[in-house]
Amino acid sequence: MSHNTFGHLFRVTTWGESHGPALGCVVDGCPPGIRFRREDIQHDLDRRRPGQSRFVTQRREPDEVKILSGVLEEEDGTLVTTGTPVSMLIENVDQRSKDYGEIARQYRPGHADYAYEAKYGLRDHRGGGRSSARETAARVAAGALARKVIPDVTIRAALVSMGTKQIDRANWDWDFTEHADNPFFTPDPQSVPLFADYLDGIRKNGSSVGAVIEVVADGVPAGWGAPLYAKLDAEIAGALMSINAVKGVEIGLGFEAARITGEENADEMRAGNEGTPRFLSNKAGGVLGGISTGQPIVARFAVKPTSSILTPRQSVDKDGQEVDVMTKGRHDPCVGIRAVPIGEAMLACVLADHFLRHRGQTGRS
Amino acid sequence: MSHNTFGHLFRVTTWGESHGPALGCVVDGCPPGIRFRREDIQHDLDRRRPGQSRFVTQRREPDEVKILSGVLEEEDGTLVTTGTPVSMLIENVDQRSKDYGEIARQYRPGHADYAYEAKYGLRDHRGGGRSSARETAARVAAGALARKVIPDVTIRAALVSMGTKQIDRANWDWDFTEHADNPFFTPDPQSVPLFADYLDGIRKNGSSVGAVIEVVADGVPAGWGAPLYAKLDAEIAGALMSINAVKGVEIGLGFEAARITGEENADEMRAGNEGTPRFLSNKAGGVLGGISTGQPIVARFAVKPTSSILTPRQSVDKDGQEVDVMTKGRHDPCVGIRAVPIGEAMLACVLADHFLRHRGQTGRS
Amino acid sequence: MSHNTFGHLFRVTTWGESHGPALGCVVDGCPPGIRFRREDIQHDLDRRRPGQSRFVTQRREPDEVKILSGVLEEEDGTLVTTGTPVSMLIENVDQRSKDYGEIARQYRPGHADYAYEAKYGLRDHRGGGRSSARETAARVAAGALARKVIPDVTIRAALVSMGTKQIDRANWDWDFTEHADNPFFTPDPQSVPLFADYLDGIRKNGSSVGAVIEVVADGVPAGWGAPLYAKLDAEIAGALMSINAVKGVEIGLGFEAARITGEENADEMRAGNEGTPRFLSNKAGGVLGGISTGQPIVARFAVKPTSSILTPRQSVDKDGQEVDVMTKGRHDPCVGIRAVPIGEAMLACVLADHFLRHRGQTGRS
Amino acid sequence: MSHNTFGHLFRVTTWGESHGPALGCVVDGCPPGIRFRREDIQHDLDRRRPGQSRFVTQRREPDEVKILSGVLEEEDGTLVTTGTPVSMLIENVDQRSKDYGEIARQYRPGHADYAYEAKYGLRDHRGGGRSSARETAARVAAGALARKVIPDVTIRAALVSMGTKQIDRANWDWDFTEHADNPFFTPDPQSVPLFADYLDGIRKNGSSVGAVIEVVADGVPAGWGAPLYAKLDAEIAGALMSINAVKGVEIGLGFEAARITGEENADEMRAGNEGTPRFLSNKAGGVLGGISTGQPIVARFAVKPTSSILTPRQSVDKDGQEVDVMTKGRHDPCVGIRAVPIGEAMLACVLADHFLRHRGQTGRS
Repeated sequence: MSHNTFGHLFRVTTWGESHGPALGCVVDGCPPGIRFRREDIQHDLDRRRPGQSRFVTQRREPDEVKILSGVLEEEDGTLVTTGTPVSMLIENVDQRSKDYGEIARQYRPGHADYAYEAKYGLRDHRGGGRSSARETAARVAAGALARKVIPDVTIRAALVSMGTKQIDRANWDWDFTEHADNPFFTPDPQSVPLFADYLDGIRKNGSSVGAVIEVVADGVPAGWGAPLYAKLDAEIAGALMSINAVKGVEIGLGFEAARITGEENADEMRAGNEGTPRFLSNKAGGVLGGISTGQPIVARFAVKPTSSILTPRQSVDKDGQEVDVMTKGRHDPCVGIRAVPIGEAMLACVLADHFLRHRGQTGRS
Repeated sequence: MSHNTFGHLFRVTTWGESHGPALGCVVDGCPPGIRFRREDIQHDLDRRRPGQSRFVTQRREPDEVKILSGVLEEEDGTLVTTGTPVSMLIENVDQRSKDYGEIARQYRPGHADYAYEAKYGLRDHRGGGRSSARETAARVAAGALARKVIPDVTIRAALVSMGTKQIDRANWDWDFTEHADNPFFTPDPQSVPLFADYLDGIRKNGSSVGAVIEVVADGVPAGWGAPLYAKLDAEIAGALMSINAVKGVEIGLGFEAARITGEENADEMRAGNEGTPRFLSNKAGGVLGGISTGQPIVARFAVKPTSSILTPRQSVDKDGQEVDVMTKGRHDPCVGIRAVPIGEAMLACVLADHFLRHRGQTGRS
Repeated sequence: MSHNTFGHLFRVTTWGESHGPALGCVVDGCPPGIRFRREDIQHDLDRRRPGQSRFVTQRREPDEVKILSGVLEEEDGTLVTTGTPVSMLIENVDQRSKDYGEIARQYRPGHADYAYEAKYGLRDHRGGGRSSARETAARVAAGALARKVIPDVTIRAALVSMGTKQIDRANWDWDFTEHADNPFFTPDPQSVPLFADYLDGIRKNGSSVGAVIEVVADGVPAGWGAPLYAKLDAEIAGALMSINAVKGVEIGLGFEAARITGEENADEMRAGNEGTPRFLSNKAGGVLGGISTGQPIVARFAVKPTSSILTPRQSVDKDGQEVDVMTKGRHDPCVGIRAVPIGEAMLACVLADHFLRHRGQTGRS
Repeated sequence: MSHNTFGHLFRVTTWGESHGPALGCVVDGCPPGIRFRREDIQHDLDRRRPGQSRFVTQRREPDEVKILSGVLEEEDGTLVTTGTPVSMLIENVDQRSKDYGEIARQYRPGHADYAYEAKYGLRDHRGGGRSSARETAARVAAGALARKVIPDVTIRAALVSMGTKQIDRANWDWDFTEHADNPFFTPDPQSVPLFADYLDGIRKNGSSVGAVIEVVADGVPAGWGAPLYAKLDAEIAGALMSINAVKGVEIGLGFEAARITGEENADEMRAGNEGTPRFLSNKAGGVLGGISTGQPIVARFAVKPTSSILTPRQSVDKDGQEVDVMTKGRHDPCVGIRAVPIGEAMLACVLADHFLRHRGQTGRS
């Protein structure tokens, strides 16, 4: 994780700002011979795309991905990776050339405005610049390719709480997360009206609210991970925490593990198939000592409420003058919703990278 | 974070197993001209050292650090870094050459035994090998040097909950965390008898319990951090999650941020000194957009209960035979206690590295 | 140097094939506040651009660079870096959609065809794919930006020999290397007719010839470099050897140093200005112990003759069938000519990176 | 190549100074299950060890390696790597605590004294500190382990010229390079008296002379290498140039390739075994497009004459005062001799690393 590059063998470098001509990513180190279609990438981009319900920002971006390098195209449109860098580009279309006059000089509370200016001495104020959530489109494109590198692994995520409201885990239905009538990626069908009412209230008040996302990878074999500092869970934590607005990450039981005893926390084992253990529980979330155990990898991350709200908040401007800052126009009342495919993408990138690293060091896979 | 190396410019590589002849670290990229004494390193090692109260493992290790390279020694014993790698070594003394007969073949629940074997095809079973908490001594040595690189930053940690028991934050006293009568690194003097009674019960039952540690860095200027994937909070999360037994990490409000509204979460600003903002709250934990804001950096991490407990637990052995596994002898009833100086060390390493990276890219500090 | 990324703090990632829609680079870690104009980048691209004399390939590529991110544009068109990734893109225009039928299956001697196929199991045969010299346009764009990061350093290169013909160093004139009547980047005006006659003969025979390029950086202060493995000369050697067709690299006297005595090789010193030494010679090429000495950095690299020649050569195809391979159409009779700006670009990237790394570790510059 | 770490998956970090208590290396990322004996490491160290003939420095160092971590020891003393870091340590014994009074303040011409001081603001003057050739013992230890990772590859080196004297390639005998009566690692038996007479003359004059070393790897399969910036030849060049006193590196024909035509340089191919090509020559030195072709990898490097000579040379001291500097006592009249096993070690490390990287990305080996 250097600057804007993520991963060691499966390396993703992203670039682009909210209001520049385009953004994109370069995926370097992708194995050769991976077959996919442009629509596979587009599918995940569409899931993250704004403007799909009243609960997300109304910015209209088609988010059409162009694949510029690293592939051969077969006659039926199938793309085959050649092992060289895959460059993907997404144009910005709906940048709304509004007058940024005031906001260009003000530090919005909860945003990176002041921090960027303190670091760099200047900043791209247009729509948040590089710190905009728009950047995550590039992550999602890279993640969609990462999935193809580890086809036996299924990576899915779901929103498990929104503000003070939670799903009922007894109703968990993975298929429902992608249902057309589910604008929240919730796995609990009964939670939809609950969340809808709640978020309508938030939205009409010009307010916003946070969320917790759970992301799960099924099919990861035992043995992936690179102790000590590149532990699988450490890199997952870093990857998820690098998503905009994320403030907490858990693996398995997470913070709950700190409250219980060793007896309660032990994932006991019995004899399984082919000499491998069968675990009786998965409190560890599929990782022990930084290495996968063959159980599902389970992580959760907390997304803070969108900082852009329609209520004025006290702040200062570049000259140190005190001002009141208020967002106008489009905003995401719960940016956590669109974080669902982003969390999947980051987990996919971590796992594809660790698959290659494990294969490199040990010759296994 | 590659394998066993942590950091980009301030790079720490650690090595060593629980029961080998020694363990240690190589700190590469340390600025030249840093002045310190061997006792500065030893001080932090002593804080992490086992055997100092009935609440931690009774393994007796002097943990005396030897500094083998990268320094010039002045007449009064002051060491001055030369800019070349600083190699530090700690001998293992109390390895107890017991018969590992059974345990060498069994997979202890909650430990990395099975995962290491699945990854590498073999493992060093003696005392947990590389996955032993003993490895953290090397991190603490490196962290002690990292502190010297950023002398204006104060890094402290405290245990804020143990199992179901919590401190009262109204009693917070940083000085008390290091008090001779405080075996828990708790900042709340009134919590000592509470934790002592609770942990005595756990210990006598041969059980164990988890803990939550809060680590705070004061004095970090605005501007440290390297978006997007090397965000300051992302690297802190990865660093803390890489510590043995950690299952969750939070920055600022952490998971609580997911439960509140944008209005509640905003850290408003007023005009401060010298044109910089004065924040009215620190819900962000000192990081926005992956860059420090000049406020204290606040992180928390959850440590699971020690997996070595005196109650038998179901498992299997290398041959897939079902067995009952029970730890005998020494154990830490709450390994979270000794995680306090380790958390400080990891945060010190992250910050020293980001200080150098920020200075490199921007010429500021 | 990982895959397609070069550098540690000033990091350049390139992507793109000879016959894809575009190629480009992402420069990550560029300091903020660097001011430049699009024409500064274009200037160096134009120097490398094909089709400018009868001595280079006639492929017609405008090589117009688009700058997609990481900058703010001022009213007069000046671009200012923001510290975020600078993405630059160059479209491929003149890809000549010829029938690759035979060549797609044949391994051209001296080319990477077989090696790529052996590594990846497939390859992009169109114009050499990723191994085409066309990729170097992206390096040149990155190098042009690198120059702006170290404005006090002047980086120039010159062709000092072509096949069996050499310049006369007594005639060295840096200004002449860029003269309109100099199609060779030679620093010796009298060498132009010599090289022209020689290369016309080579060209008319459908043959090709190698060259040696000397690249010099003036103005590098003492102290840049990062021993031991990232020594300044080691990274220069790696950078120059990574250019297509390069087979040898020298620093200072290079191989000549192996032939002389210690007395002859010593760069003696006398008292210079401001307490720094004044060197009486520069046999070391400006680097001692991997660190710059304040003298000019001098390196040379050998470029092999273009492997595409119009004379048939024996080879095999993918099925192991023996074939004769012959290039048709456009070719560079001396690819070393266009290597001159590429060598400058690579040296610029190494130096910009080491400037930032040195500043990071030591706080000096 | 960051600071003192070499490699990406097979990562070698070295530490230590000439006159500190010890020096060593940490090899991280070594595959598990590699079997070797301590004597395998010692064997290569002994080949590099000083004091073995009148032609090398008389410093007496046993150079006994201690292996501190990352291995399990079987009953017969065989060591088996566990996949965790292998730490190796070599004590300094013969540091001669002489009075460094004058030399501590003087900048020796050709040495790194001034450069280190300019970079770091201070330096360890004792025996050259970190820039001493003594550091290369750690490289040799790492290289000996690297060989075990690629057991099908044979890596050998030989001295092919010394000053103005050269071997006769017609006499090349690899076995002779290790012959007891061969103090020069020359492959030409008839060159021994020639080199001996020549070097005796140099030595008696208190002078020194350079050398060229050729290093060859047989058995590397086609496909290793990671274009573009981590090309196999680029990383070999960087690795060899990082050795003390090296000023030039060539692959295959090297600089000679710049003098010939495309027809002469082409390595033609005919049908070989199992569908792979059979090359009719190896002017490329086994690498095309940065990827191995299956032919022997051939590299050469030029070592400058030892800078420590017994003839006074003009220089300055830290205060800018003009002085004459003269080495007293032990010195290597041709440091290139001992560079032979060091060159092998660096090539072994590059190849082991690329083997793992290739296996990681492609699943092949």
